[in-house]
Amino acid sequence: MAKALVLEEKGKLSLREFPVALDLGPEDVKVALRTVGVCGSDVHYYTHGKIGPFVVKEPMILGHEAAGVVVEVGDAVTDLKPGDRVCMEPGIPNPTSRASKLGIYNVDPAVTFWATPPIHGCLTPEVVHPAAFTYKLPKTVSFAEGAMVEPFAIGMQSALRARIQPGDVGVVVGAGPIGMMTALAALAGGCAKVYVADLAQPKLDIIGEYDGIETINITQQPVAQAIAEATDGWGADVVFECSGAAPAILDVPALVRPGGAIVLVGMPVEPVPMDIVSLQAKEARLETVFRYANIYDRAIALIGAGKVNLKPLISETLPFEQSIAAFDRAAEGRPTDVKIQIEMPVA
Amino acid sequence: MAKALVLEEKGKLSLREFPVALDLGPEDVKVALRTVGVCGSDVHYYTHGKIGPFVVKEPMILGHEAAGVVVEVGDAVTDLKPGDRVCMEPGIPNPTSRASKLGIYNVDPAVTFWATPPIHGCLTPEVVHPAAFTYKLPKTVSFAEGAMVEPFAIGMQSALRARIQPGDVGVVVGAGPIGMMTALAALAGGCAKVYVADLAQPKLDIIGEYDGIETINITQQPVAQAIAEATDGWGADVVFECSGAAPAILDVPALVRPGGAIVLVGMPVEPVPMDIVSLQAKEARLETVFRYANIYDRAIALIGAGKVNLKPLISETLPFEQSIAAFDRAAEGRPTDVKIQIEMPVA
Amino acid sequence: MAKALVLEEKGKLSLREFPVALDLGPEDVKVALRTVGVCGSDVHYYTHGKIGPFVVKEPMILGHEAAGVVVEVGDAVTDLKPGDRVCMEPGIPNPTSRASKLGIYNVDPAVTFWATPPIHGCLTPEVVHPAAFTYKLPKTVSFAEGAMVEPFAIGMQSALRARIQPGDVGVVVGAGPIGMMTALAALAGGCAKVYVADLAQPKLDIIGEYDGIETINITQQPVAQAIAEATDGWGADVVFECSGAAPAILDVPALVRPGGAIVLVGMPVEPVPMDIVSLQAKEARLETVFRYANIYDRAIALIGAGKVNLKPLISETLPFEQSIAAFDRAAEGRPTDVKIQIEMPVA
Amino acid sequence: MAKALVLEEKGKLSLREFPVALDLGPEDVKVALRTVGVCGSDVHYYTHGKIGPFVVKEPMILGHEAAGVVVEVGDAVTDLKPGDRVCMEPGIPNPTSRASKLGIYNVDPAVTFWATPPIHGCLTPEVVHPAAFTYKLPKTVSFAEGAMVEPFAIGMQSALRARIQPGDVGVVVGAGPIGMMTALAALAGGCAKVYVADLAQPKLDIIGEYDGIETINITQQPVAQAIAEATDGWGADVVFECSGAAPAILDVPALVRPGGAIVLVGMPVEPVPMDIVSLQAKEARLETVFRYANIYDRAIALIGAGKVNLKPLISETLPFEQSIAAFDRAAEGRPTDVKIQIEMPVA
Repeated sequence: MAKALVLEEKGKLSLREFPVALDLGPEDVKVALRTVGVCGSDVHYYTHGKIGPFVVKEPMILGHEAAGVVVEVGDAVTDLKPGDRVCMEPGIPNPTSRASKLGIYNVDPAVTFWATPPIHGCLTPEVVHPAAFTYKLPKTVSFAEGAMVEPFAIGMQSALRARIQPGDVGVVVGAGPIGMMTALAALAGGCAKVYVADLAQPKLDIIGEYDGIETINITQQPVAQAIAEATDGWGADVVFECSGAAPAILDVPALVRPGGAIVLVGMPVEPVPMDIVSLQAKEARLETVFRYANIYDRAIALIGAGKVNLKPLISETLPFEQSIAAFDRAAEGRPTDVKIQIEMPVA
Repeated sequence: MAKALVLEEKGKLSLREFPVALDLGPEDVKVALRTVGVCGSDVHYYTHGKIGPFVVKEPMILGHEAAGVVVEVGDAVTDLKPGDRVCMEPGIPNPTSRASKLGIYNVDPAVTFWATPPIHGCLTPEVVHPAAFTYKLPKTVSFAEGAMVEPFAIGMQSALRARIQPGDVGVVVGAGPIGMMTALAALAGGCAKVYVADLAQPKLDIIGEYDGIETINITQQPVAQAIAEATDGWGADVVFECSGAAPAILDVPALVRPGGAIVLVGMPVEPVPMDIVSLQAKEARLETVFRYANIYDRAIALIGAGKVNLKPLISETLPFEQSIAAFDRAAEGRPTDVKIQIEMPVA
Repeated sequence: MAKALVLEEKGKLSLREFPVALDLGPEDVKVALRTVGVCGSDVHYYTHGKIGPFVVKEPMILGHEAAGVVVEVGDAVTDLKPGDRVCMEPGIPNPTSRASKLGIYNVDPAVTFWATPPIHGCLTPEVVHPAAFTYKLPKTVSFAEGAMVEPFAIGMQSALRARIQPGDVGVVVGAGPIGMMTALAALAGGCAKVYVADLAQPKLDIIGEYDGIETINITQQPVAQAIAEATDGWGADVVFECSGAAPAILDVPALVRPGGAIVLVGMPVEPVPMDIVSLQAKEARLETVFRYANIYDRAIALIGAGKVNLKPLISETLPFEQSIAAFDRAAEGRPTDVKIQIEMPVA
Repeated sequence: MAKALVLEEKGKLSLREFPVALDLGPEDVKVALRTVGVCGSDVHYYTHGKIGPFVVKEPMILGHEAAGVVVEVGDAVTDLKPGDRVCMEPGIPNPTSRASKLGIYNVDPAVTFWATPPIHGCLTPEVVHPAAFTYKLPKTVSFAEGAMVEPFAIGMQSALRARIQPGDVGVVVGAGPIGMMTALAALAGGCAKVYVADLAQPKLDIIGEYDGIETINITQQPVAQAIAEATDGWGADVVFECSGAAPAILDVPALVRPGGAIVLVGMPVEPVPMDIVSLQAKEARLETVFRYANIYDRAIALIGAGKVNLKPLISETLPFEQSIAAFDRAAEGRPTDVKIQIEMPVA
């Protein structure tokens, strides 16, 4: 039994004692959590009780964006030791599945993922995790930044799928947390400039602070027009659709250059109309992303080297004892909030 | 003035004398046509008078699938000579445009294309064409096959965009002429097997004659089910959507394997709903195609080497004098007709 | 204890009782061998006692090209069952290593590989193997062909690394068994034509029997000259260097087209001079291969579909009782021998 | 006739009146030069009279790294106008050659290139150049930086060929001007960190000033050891060999990770030994580069956006009148000199 933030059912959180499985296998490590971020999906389970086919049927521990300190290692673990500062990849595939053998373990149908029913998350003092999905943090990366690796990894996966070439012009449609992460990953990944479009000015103000980012408030100018002006009518090399909004998706062919790439990051609830003929006229390539694979080490490298600074995106930090307040704050969805984090007590 | 098959206006064809520009520039060749295929787009201009933004406003010569014999070459032409048997790429880009410099001259907005208003086609005894877009036919390739290179090139472009890996399982949805071309290109391009789905059994019977092709009559079994059975539930590596039909496009995520590719070849008239979340769950890549670039030489190589046999797809051949009948036959859309060709008179 | 073909030390083989580990783990299968091919590396251990850093220090069972029948499966195995006809991938990686997570498990430094000291091979009636590296054979693939999947997989890996595009012209330099496998994989993988060069006419006669293969006897014409003639001076799209011979490697830039690819398959014992400036002048890409990863299923698919016919390359089959004779025959290196196989007794 | 810096023959420069071709074709622009950089190849023609097959047989104007102002445009030029600040790509291909159609116009055998015999360079007040190879400079890019685009483009081409993924670890062997350009391009192109190795400490001091660059003085520590330490023995994702030195090339397999990439940028005069088996053991990919294609716009974008700062690499600027002194200074090869530039007189 350990204290944990438990989603009892839709709309009801408890911070209470809960049975946490802490058996240490030979290839596992035990980690004392230090910082855990609150993700939109955590909040969505809290407010809606489900995401697509994943339904909360029994009490479940929330949390999957996490950093901490190794406190114990299994017998076969050689590259981690107690005291190592780490962050953890929350999805665990079957390592010998067909997808995993191909290197795309994120799309292995057998993946289990923290805080995706019925798998428990990590908002509890200690967790056991496979060493192979636990990554050392360099001294230059704080626990708070370590807990940002997970959402940043989605932006990174998007940047990798785009196959950015140095000097590309990028566009991000939608300035939510994932849109911001994607913009920073695209910049770090070689874009000369990234245009971020949204209708919420407070969000644009936050991301617009970064060198290399230009913002487009779509209540004032259509994105397509802004991009046409910025590129002499040629279009952007890579477009990241992070809004999931139907009108944005319909409009996406207008943003991309002939032969350019579009990455579909946002997740529209229903099928949405796409203008295939306009995509064909530019022979655009479309990529889709699902979480990430083989990203953590490179994300950590960029943060550790100072090429990506995620600290300005941490809007508020609350102690574990105020976890429920942290979730309620996140559920408010203030436009000036990007990431709420929870600090775990040091034992 | 030369005899030509002229689309006077929507629904009205004439075989009559017409002013044909035959000025030979230094980098041009003059070609005596021998075989010209009738394409669905030619027929569509005949029956509808327009395709999308391209409207027939003045009399226009039809035809763009062509093979013939070089009869004269410009002063700067070194790699072709009178007597060479050739076929011609009907689209001419601006060779120093931004797209052309990138090697994707097919998406150069400045492309002019035979029989796309207001550019005349080639259903006339002689045409002048840039040598750079005129390709020698080996002895093993007949004029009839040479005139099939153009539609086959679309299938080839699709196969290239798919980035087939040797031994892939392919699926083609839609067994029209382009679907058939795509299936043959995918097979030649490395697929171990290609499943072709349609609801017209006569079309399936034609393409099903080829080794390596398996057919799925979707009036009898859903494609998704057939592919799941054929691949132990894993899905196809590459899916070619050649129907342009909304239900097929909505269903396409069910056909592809995790990490697989979908090529959107069919052109739906309107925007159609796509199931983005299902595509993301498999992290599918989508490619679109627009005509072709840098394909003719490799298409000719495959036909010349006997790896692709297009002869069974030539359903009927009529003499130039019966061009109008040829178009009327093509406009009928008999399910057993794949390609109607017109044989030009030898001078 | 089981009967096995044991390499006691350099130059000394015994067919004798040997302790064979047959413990079946939950994710393993037990396979009764039916056909085992004799590989050049097996023969090299026999004749030289070592390959590079791998030295035979203790008696070792030989053999790693194998097909057989599943006789027992571990508790966690769901996709194989007793009676399944299978072939086995002889290299077993650490599935959660950094390389394996990337999908390139072949270059995981922790790989163990049959008949590579100190790991035993499979020339014994039964072996235990991980189900994840055991592949079902369709009815259309015989055990003899199943045992050819291993060497063919090397050719397939080469074809994949080349990133062949449909209609490419290929060249294979060196018509040993791996050169032949590579030529067939390149053809199946989309090449319109593959030119195979060697100085041994008997080898060229064997591979020259295949449609799509043209042979070049380099005692009669330099390869570079033959390829220049065949390609109008442009060069081949993909070149597979399978000889490992220094002069061939020095000459390789002359064979490839501007922007083409060279795959280094042959393994020269010592560093050999390469003409880097000539490679740069064509901006050639060079790929190297090390065994294979994620190849078996696609290799089996091509063989099963009849797109690749390996039967003509099986030169002789001997019973297990005559294994030593089989190795002595293979060690002779007759130019008309491609593959010698050993048939295991049916229990 | 116009004043020009003329290489009369090996070792002899004159600044004198020279017949300069200034005929303006319809697709050309006339540019008044403002800044011209001195390249190692210019100096090499000066000191040796030839580079490989290119021999100075008649007086030739030097210079090919240039920026200036458009003073006149041909009739067909629409995207440039007098007064535009520009830089020029010095190589002009045949735009409809096979290589150009593929988008790799840099390897078109028909390319003519400034200051490569017998083609004159641009160290003269005005030149005529095709508009398609003339690129507008944004206000944020000075003429001095504009004249750096040419050498930086080589580094960019190397970064593109490497196919850097965001967060990669890069290594550059050789800290000459091109090595430095490559390091900056690799950083801008997504590397988290780039290690630059050389034996000249003054060069390392210059490049080591940049954020994200770490230097390795190989007189103090072998590169392989430094990289192994920096990457926990895994190796670098991308290695740029910019020294052209035989020992460095032999050692290059030790630097790269399994499945990593090596870009051969340096040009060894003679064939040099490569350790193919060690490359194969890591299944390394090798890329070669030859100048650049489709790079200028993206290079300018990165400089203009402030992501790449080339100013610290401009070591000295001399007026046109002192061109010969500029060349003599460059020929000295001071280790603290990276780039010497010549400022042209404003008319």
